[in-house]
Amino acid sequence: MDDKLMLMIPGPTPVPEQVLLAMAKHPIGHRSGDFSKIIAEVTEGLQWLHQTQNDVLILAASGTGAMEAGIINFLSPGDRVLVGSNGKFGERWALLCEAFGLSVERVTAEWGKPLDPAQFQTLLAADTAKQIKAVIVTHSETSTGVLNDLKTISQSVKSHGALMLVDAVTSLGATSVPMDDWGLDMIASGSQKGFMLPPGLGFVAVSPKAWEAYSQAKLPRFYLDLGKYRKEAAKNSHPFTPPVNMFFGLQVALKMMQAEGLENIFARHHRHMTATRAAMKALNLPLFTSDQASSPAITAVAPVNVEAEQIRAIVRKKFDIVMAGGQDHLSGKIFRVGHLGFVSDRDILTAVGALEAVLQELNYEVTAGAGVVAAAQALSA
Amino acid sequence: MDDKLMLMIPGPTPVPEQVLLAMAKHPIGHRSGDFSKIIAEVTEGLQWLHQTQNDVLILAASGTGAMEAGIINFLSPGDRVLVGSNGKFGERWALLCEAFGLSVERVTAEWGKPLDPAQFQTLLAADTAKQIKAVIVTHSETSTGVLNDLKTISQSVKSHGALMLVDAVTSLGATSVPMDDWGLDMIASGSQKGFMLPPGLGFVAVSPKAWEAYSQAKLPRFYLDLGKYRKEAAKNSHPFTPPVNMFFGLQVALKMMQAEGLENIFARHHRHMTATRAAMKALNLPLFTSDQASSPAITAVAPVNVEAEQIRAIVRKKFDIVMAGGQDHLSGKIFRVGHLGFVSDRDILTAVGALEAVLQELNYEVTAGAGVVAAAQALSA
Repeated sequence: MDDKLMLMIPGPTPVPEQVLLAMAKHPIGHRSGDFSKIIAEVTEGLQWLHQTQNDVLILAASGTGAMEAGIINFLSPGDRVLVGSNGKFGERWALLCEAFGLSVERVTAEWGKPLDPAQFQTLLAADTAKQIKAVIVTHSETSTGVLNDLKTISQSVKSHGALMLVDAVTSLGATSVPMDDWGLDMIASGSQKGFMLPPGLGFVAVSPKAWEAYSQAKLPRFYLDLGKYRKEAAKNSHPFTPPVNMFFGLQVALKMMQAEGLENIFARHHRHMTATRAAMKALNLPLFTSDQASSPAITAVAPVNVEAEQIRAIVRKKFDIVMAGGQDHLSGKIFRVGHLGFVSDRDILTAVGALEAVLQELNYEVTAGAGVVAAAQALSA
Repeated sequence: MDDKLMLMIPGPTPVPEQVLLAMAKHPIGHRSGDFSKIIAEVTEGLQWLHQTQNDVLILAASGTGAMEAGIINFLSPGDRVLVGSNGKFGERWALLCEAFGLSVERVTAEWGKPLDPAQFQTLLAADTAKQIKAVIVTHSETSTGVLNDLKTISQSVKSHGALMLVDAVTSLGATSVPMDDWGLDMIASGSQKGFMLPPGLGFVAVSPKAWEAYSQAKLPRFYLDLGKYRKEAAKNSHPFTPPVNMFFGLQVALKMMQAEGLENIFARHHRHMTATRAAMKALNLPLFTSDQASSPAITAVAPVNVEAEQIRAIVRKKFDIVMAGGQDHLSGKIFRVGHLGFVSDRDILTAVGALEAVLQELNYEVTAGAGVVAAAQALSA
């Protein structure tokens, strides 16, 4: 039943009906006073979500486009950067930096394990000549479900003086990313994640220190030149033609988030993570990440004695639930349950129930009902 | 009456209800078989619209993002390029090329006048060392309503051997842009124009000759690296997270365009241009462009003895019609009527009628009814 499709992937995430209907309104002119009011309102909402007074700029781009903007605007060819790489997205930013002629040093961890903040600390402390211009970290690694310890890493970066550039694509709106408190210099994210919107918008928050670096940075840029966005944003305008219907949706989604409140949103995501993990344990399905380093947005499972792709195929076919597979070398080895954005307790129970039914069908050794019981207990805790 | 708003600007353009409703559907996974089918279908539709067998790639970006991709993927730092500059957008591409370190030679014409193909021919013929790597031309200059003679310019470029890179943002879907027939190497466009969609998607069509240049080109790129898009498009996939709801809308819009047929679409735009121009003449309002160089998408008017901005303000306030103002040094000197995309004969009559009523209110010397009579005659011719 195609119209019954239920997304439990880490993006696109489910979108509330009132957001979809807002997006179905007739477009208005992007140079009108009415649109300026929308820009002003959503910018304020974005600052609230980022827990910052900094500029938050809105691009017609995916999360990758936002992240590229958040890197190339602050650096020059040959600049040395440390890039945390413990999954597909961390590695993507290393490749992106190399494509732009930066001198990249990777700080790696095995996929599924968190980055070690001590490694950053050692490299930064050794860099007395201050050659490291930026440190790039993926907060929630979407490909593995790992939450990296951004807070600790950012403390070392702050002491050193390099820029702290953050991919918060699947952490923003799922867990606290307090830009000002943690001294983050750039946060990039995308609309199809915690924002409860379809894909199409990228967001880039920029600190005053990053703007200082901007004025010296020499990598070429035009469409992704954040200075152009800042200049127009100051007038509640946009340098190019923004996706106005996505802005209609953003306006509604941010209002919904503000009505729920940041603490409640984070608690909900944490509850869903805990319940999902409890269910997997009860179902005898090995989790791919430790409890200490698990993302509140995505739970990755590495099944043994049963095929990840077989589980995904049946859960899709029989129950119209889409779960994500593994990427790159993890293809076929893990499956990923997204619990990010517009997800309710009921959705978690539903997904666990469907998964349990599939395991029974596959004759996987599992105590009937154990997953749903464990999830329900965790949800009510 | 805000909900009665009628857009007569050159973008965003009006969007059909069935397109808006398609965009309001719940998103699906962008790595699913169902989404691959949509990519395959819309790609075929885009090739039909571009009259080409070449690759047509879809980006989450505005028209400027698409145009940047269509330039930086085929060139290296220091490459010499000729850029036609006779309006805001032509000039934008010159600035973009300079931002990327290209050696730019502008071929200029006064804003409101067309580029002279003979100037391109002279420069290209003189370049026996073949140092000119690309010629960049804006087909329909949105800021002035001029249609440049792309066909003649492209003939000179073809003889020379440089790449012909085209901004067709407001010409594609309004007039014929036969990529293969004219030997164009790159065509960039955006969804909020002839496509009858909201803003949010950029399109880049690429010739085999441009792909050859791609393999040698050294400007840095990642998010806008068209090779990544080509590789995934071959598998009916996308390198990043595409705006899936915009794709739902694109699927419907292309079906509507195919049902109308290319020749009918072009004839409709030509009819609306002719009727709008006839009405302006009958209303004693000076046209900003000649009949020989007028865009079928936008008519710019340079009123005398009456303020352009006053006309715009009253037509907006009393009749809920949005017309565009002038940009840069033309601000306050012209107003622009968009007749691009989802526009019917009735819309033209309506806009002319409203304009006429405003002129009477402003005591501008005009024969009552003359504009509507002239438009109606041109529409039925």
